[in-house]
Amino acid sequence: MADTDRGALPPATSRSSYALWTADTLRYGDTDRQGHVNNAVFATFCESGRVSFLYDEALDLRGPGANFVIARLELDYRAELFYPGSVDIGTRVLSIGRSSFRLGQGIFSGERCAATAECIMVLVDDATRKSQPLTAHLRAWLEARLAR
Amino acid sequence: MADTDRGALPPATSRSSYALWTADTLRYGDTDRQGHVNNAVFATFCESGRVSFLYDEALDLRGPGANFVIARLELDYRAELFYPGSVDIGTRVLSIGRSSFRLGQGIFSGERCAATAECIMVLVDDATRKSQPLTAHLRAWLEARLAR
Amino acid sequence: MADTDRGALPPATSRSSYALWTADTLRYGDTDRQGHVNNAVFATFCESGRVSFLYDEALDLRGPGANFVIARLELDYRAELFYPGSVDIGTRVLSIGRSSFRLGQGIFSGERCAATAECIMVLVDDATRKSQPLTAHLRAWLEARLAR
Amino acid sequence: MADTDRGALPPATSRSSYALWTADTLRYGDTDRQGHVNNAVFATFCESGRVSFLYDEALDLRGPGANFVIARLELDYRAELFYPGSVDIGTRVLSIGRSSFRLGQGIFSGERCAATAECIMVLVDDATRKSQPLTAHLRAWLEARLAR
Repeated sequence: MADTDRGALPPATSRSSYALWTADTLRYGDTDRQGHVNNAVFATFCESGRVSFLYDEALDLRGPGANFVIARLELDYRAELFYPGSVDIGTRVLSIGRSSFRLGQGIFSGERCAATAECIMVLVDDATRKSQPLTAHLRAWLEARLAR
Repeated sequence: MADTDRGALPPATSRSSYALWTADTLRYGDTDRQGHVNNAVFATFCESGRVSFLYDEALDLRGPGANFVIARLELDYRAELFYPGSVDIGTRVLSIGRSSFRLGQGIFSGERCAATAECIMVLVDDATRKSQPLTAHLRAWLEARLAR
Repeated sequence: MADTDRGALPPATSRSSYALWTADTLRYGDTDRQGHVNNAVFATFCESGRVSFLYDEALDLRGPGANFVIARLELDYRAELFYPGSVDIGTRVLSIGRSSFRLGQGIFSGERCAATAECIMVLVDDATRKSQPLTAHLRAWLEARLAR
Repeated sequence: MADTDRGALPPATSRSSYALWTADTLRYGDTDRQGHVNNAVFATFCESGRVSFLYDEALDLRGPGANFVIARLELDYRAELFYPGSVDIGTRVLSIGRSSFRLGQGIFSGERCAATAECIMVLVDDATRKSQPLTAHLRAWLEARLAR
């Protein structure tokens, strides 16, 4: 997967760097015995942020007979989250490959950045369970949202 | 725990029967391989609905050195829930005992009632892990919201 | 759903009352900020206990084009669970109806009973999403395990 | 955090590369509507693998008044997991810093490697919520398990 140069991108910890947004509600059950939101729930927030558009039926980005599978997740934990409250999850497109693409994400509690993340998503054929080229529709949609 | 007569109460499946409300966001991770929101997540929604006021720091219902513990949960599943979407969780007070009380709840997707529930909550002393009498403040708060 | 008389059944809090067993591992992420295993996870343990046989492919209890859906769950919380550790989930058949059946369950940490539960499971047609009669195979399997 | 050279380490995808082991049981509720174990649950497995020794009371690695907080998680998804089954989570120490250390992990279903991960763990003072130097006991324990 060829990465574009990200040296000049807006900072991952700023809300203004993200164009795609989702909100999630913190649950009491998200907490663990340390009193804060459990670290694995952050991976769920990242998922909430990306599937909100990847599986949006009106957008139909995946095309028929295909699904998105995550290949890699990098999560930088920057601040604890505490119940009650909500989070806003911002997402941007970092790079686009042949059958995969890289997203950048920020998890925010108000203006405070609780975590930043990057993930590589792969388009997978439901029948063969193998990667397949991004559809032209998906590619165009991602390119229009490529972070600069 | 002495139960009040609930024969004449408004129906559990009507939004108008509930005075206390919380909202929760459905998560992709809430689904299971049957395609719908997993049944155990409904127990989480019930929890979200009750802790929103039970642990509201401004209300301070539990008093110092005490916590609420659930003694019994009855959940009637009435309709499947599907991602994406959100739920509204309505709660009402059904009866009040010495150290416990019974809540009634409805989980709604729009006007559709996905589940109704009843639970018995007990006030437990943090140190002894034993039940303790409801504080006067808590009792008064619950009585003011007793379903009729 | 016609219930059999359960007056003479062995106690729900005894391991010896259950014939079907599953084990589950407690996870750090199962805890909540009260320090114990979150109450909604108990609903997950009940599910683990019943799906271990309901969805056992070798048993093939549901038959083609059908799935089990839970209609009602009653959970009595009897003791807190703490990480680390494991639970054993015992299950027995309490009664059998036309398109549904009732299971009784006990969640055990060693000999200690942390919770007992009862649930009503319904066999649902995948296409119509409506209940369908239990298959003869499923009915015979349940009857052979009916608690006495 | 100064990293040791990892060029010569045994492969992350081999069971034989790991010395510390934990097992976890797959749950029906771990699946999502794609039919496989949800990707965020992999973060839970990583947690299960590391907290089994980090919070082992007999080992007492954190010392009084301190807790471990995750600073970064990198997860490479290599194969899908399907219910039912179990996973073995292997962990090794990759490098040791002043107040943090890096762990490498492999999530295995039998011999098949479903994911590999690296995480940076920080020892945090409960009172100040700031990082604190690793205790001599913790440092010695980690050094004795440093991957080579």
